[in-house]
Amino acid sequence: MEFPAEAFLPGPRVTLPGTPGGPLAGLTFAAKDLFDVAGHPTGGGNPDWAASHPTPARHAWAVRRLLDAGAELVGKTVTCEISLGILGFNPHEGTPPNPAAPGCLPGGSSSGSASAVAAGACDIALGTDSGGSVRVPASLCGLYGMRPTLGAVSVEGVLRQAETFDTAGWFARDAATFARAASALLNEALPEPSAAGVLVAEDAFAIADAEVREALAPALARIGGMFGGVTPIALAEPGELEVWGNQRNICQRAEAWRNFSPWIDRCNPRFGFSAARNLAFAATITPEQFAVANSVRARVVERMRALLEGGAILCIPTTPFTAPPLGLSLSELDRQSGRIGLLCSIAGMASLPQLSLPLGTAGGKPCGLSIICWRGADARLAAIALALENAR
Amino acid sequence: MEFPAEAFLPGPRVTLPGTPGGPLAGLTFAAKDLFDVAGHPTGGGNPDWAASHPTPARHAWAVRRLLDAGAELVGKTVTCEISLGILGFNPHEGTPPNPAAPGCLPGGSSSGSASAVAAGACDIALGTDSGGSVRVPASLCGLYGMRPTLGAVSVEGVLRQAETFDTAGWFARDAATFARAASALLNEALPEPSAAGVLVAEDAFAIADAEVREALAPALARIGGMFGGVTPIALAEPGELEVWGNQRNICQRAEAWRNFSPWIDRCNPRFGFSAARNLAFAATITPEQFAVANSVRARVVERMRALLEGGAILCIPTTPFTAPPLGLSLSELDRQSGRIGLLCSIAGMASLPQLSLPLGTAGGKPCGLSIICWRGADARLAAIALALENAR
Repeated sequence: MEFPAEAFLPGPRVTLPGTPGGPLAGLTFAAKDLFDVAGHPTGGGNPDWAASHPTPARHAWAVRRLLDAGAELVGKTVTCEISLGILGFNPHEGTPPNPAAPGCLPGGSSSGSASAVAAGACDIALGTDSGGSVRVPASLCGLYGMRPTLGAVSVEGVLRQAETFDTAGWFARDAATFARAASALLNEALPEPSAAGVLVAEDAFAIADAEVREALAPALARIGGMFGGVTPIALAEPGELEVWGNQRNICQRAEAWRNFSPWIDRCNPRFGFSAARNLAFAATITPEQFAVANSVRARVVERMRALLEGGAILCIPTTPFTAPPLGLSLSELDRQSGRIGLLCSIAGMASLPQLSLPLGTAGGKPCGLSIICWRGADARLAAIALALENAR
Repeated sequence: MEFPAEAFLPGPRVTLPGTPGGPLAGLTFAAKDLFDVAGHPTGGGNPDWAASHPTPARHAWAVRRLLDAGAELVGKTVTCEISLGILGFNPHEGTPPNPAAPGCLPGGSSSGSASAVAAGACDIALGTDSGGSVRVPASLCGLYGMRPTLGAVSVEGVLRQAETFDTAGWFARDAATFARAASALLNEALPEPSAAGVLVAEDAFAIADAEVREALAPALARIGGMFGGVTPIALAEPGELEVWGNQRNICQRAEAWRNFSPWIDRCNPRFGFSAARNLAFAATITPEQFAVANSVRARVVERMRALLEGGAILCIPTTPFTAPPLGLSLSELDRQSGRIGLLCSIAGMASLPQLSLPLGTAGGKPCGLSIICWRGADARLAAIALALENAR
C-alpha cells in the first residue's frame, strides 16, 4: 500500500519527536489540520483561514499529550474545510484517497487522518468529531476511531466548530495501538472490559443498507457472546430518528454559525459551494428553532440516559453504507450525508462516547460497527475493542 | 497612471490583431473573462469554471465584431465570479484596482474591464450587465459604460447568468471612442441626439447620497439645457422602488439558479461565501415567488413604456454613492450592494438601455449620471453622450 502524500498538507511535512521513554514510544502520529502545532499555521482546510488567523504559539492539548507520551508527530493532515463535510471532499486541497476502498471517498471531515492511518503512513492520527468526523472516516476506511465523551479529551488549541458538539478523537489500525492512545489521551488505565447488557438498536440498523447489516452481524454476535447475549431495542418511535437528525442539524449549525460568522463577515472567505450553502442556511436559524431543537436534544439525552447509564452498551452501524465512489453529484452527496447524519446524531445529541470498530466488510469495502456507552466510560469502549481483537 | 496588471487575467496576455482598415482601427480593447476567445479557456472569474468546460473554438460575437471592425484585443479581464457581484470583489483572482479612486473598489462584475479602461491600458472594454455589471463599474471608475437593450448586442459566446437580464456592454474613457464602439456593436450609424423630454426621477435620486445628488446637478442641468428643460417625476409610489429591487432579485436569481445549478450539482465549485450564499438562496425561490416577481416586472415594463416610449429620456444616478473603500465587511458590502440594486433594477426589469455618463465627482471620486430610454434607442443615448461632450 502506498503512503498517500495527498492525506497530508502540501509542502514540507511538520515533524516533531516525542518525549523519549514514554508509553507511546515507537509510535508515530499525525494531526488533522484543525489542531495547533506551535510555529505552524493552522489551515483548517480552507485557504482563507490561515491567512486571517495568527500562527499558533502553542501546541493543541492533544498534540502535546501525544508528544509527551512519546509518540512522534509525522505530519498534519488534510481536513474538510473548517471541519464541515462528512464524506471527505476538500475542493481546495484535494480529497485524500481511501486506501481501503480505492476510487472511493475516505469520509470526513478527518479525511486525511483516516487516510494516513489506513495507508500505514502513521500509527495514530488525531481527528475531531462534531457530527461524525472521526466515526465516519473510521467506518469508511476500516479503522478504529472514536468520538469521546464531550469534554473527555480537551479541545484546547483546536479550530472549533460547534461548542456543545466538538470533540477530539483518534484513529488506529489495530485495537492495541488504539488502546495505548486511549490511555494517553483519556489519562487513565484501561479497565476490564464489561457491559451490563448489549443493546442492538434495530431502528438504527434499519437505516443501513442490507449488505452493511449483514456484514456487521458476525461482529454483533461476537460482542453478544462476550457479554451474555444481545437485546434488540428501538431507540425511538417510528420516524423519530429523522427528527433527531434534523434537530441535531439545527443545534450544530446554529452553533457553527455563531462561531464562524464573525470571521465570515470580516473575510468573505472562499468555500466549496456545499459548505457555504450549509453555513448560509445556518444563518437563517431563528432562536425559536434553536430552542425547539434543544428541547428535542434534552429528550434524546434522557432516552440515552435511561438506556445506558446502568452500564449497557449500544450497538449501531457507524455508517449506513460503505465508502461512496468519487465523482458523485452534489445532490447525491447530500442524500448520502443526510443518511449518515441520522446515525451520527445519537451520540452527538447526547454527548456520548462512540467507538467505531472495523469489523465489517461488504463488497470488498469496510464498514464499521459502533459501540456507544454512557458519558465518561470512554476507556471501557477501548477495553472492549481490545478484548474483541484478542479473542479473535 | 500605471497600467493595472491586476485588471487582466494572470499569465500571458491574450492578444489578437484587428482587421486592418476597419472603423475601429487604432483602438485597443479588452474582454471580460466571460467572453469566449477562440483557443483560450473562458474562466468566468472562478477556478472551477474553466476546468469543467471546454475551451471555446470560436470567438464570442462581440469579440469578433470588434476585431472585424479593426480594434486590437490586448487582453482578457478579471470578472466577479460567474458575473455575480456588483462591487468588484474577486476572492480567487484578486480585486482589480480602481484607478479613479485609489484604495477603493472598482465596482463589478465587469471590474477588470472598467479598471483597464480607466487606467488607459486599453481604449474600449467589453463587459456584461445583468444586474448592473457595466453601469456600476462605469460609475465608480469614471467611465462611459452602457447596458444595451436586451438582445441589441448579441450575447452569443458569453458565459450566461440570467437569460432575460444578460446583456453585453462596453466601456470607454471618452464619448467619441464610446460612440465609435457603439456604432460597431449596435451595427448602426449614430443618429442626431434627440429627446422628447428629459425626465428626472426624484425617487431614484432620493436613494443617492446627498453628495452624489449635488455632484450630478450640473450635468442634469446641461442635459436639460440641450433638450428644453427637465421634468421632475416619481417613477413609482413611495416604497415601490424597493419592491422593484427585491422582485428583480427574485427574477434574476431564479434564472441564474436554473442556469448554474446543473454545473453546481456536478462540480460543487468553490465560491466566495457571498456568491455561494446568494446562489443557495436562489435555489429556494419557489415557482410561485418567481411568478409574483414576474408580475411586478410586467408592471415596471408598463410604467417605463408609458414614460419613455414617446422618446423621452430618463435620468437617474447610476450608483447611490462613489466607490466604497476596500476592506469592508460582508454585511457592509451587502448593505451597499442592496442600495445599488434599487437603481439598477429599473432598466434591468424593463430590458431598457442605460448609459452611465462620467459627469460627476464627489469627494474626489467619480459618480455617474445615467440616461435611460425606451428599447432599441441605444444609439441615441451614445449620440447624446457625444453631444454633451462636444458641447463642453
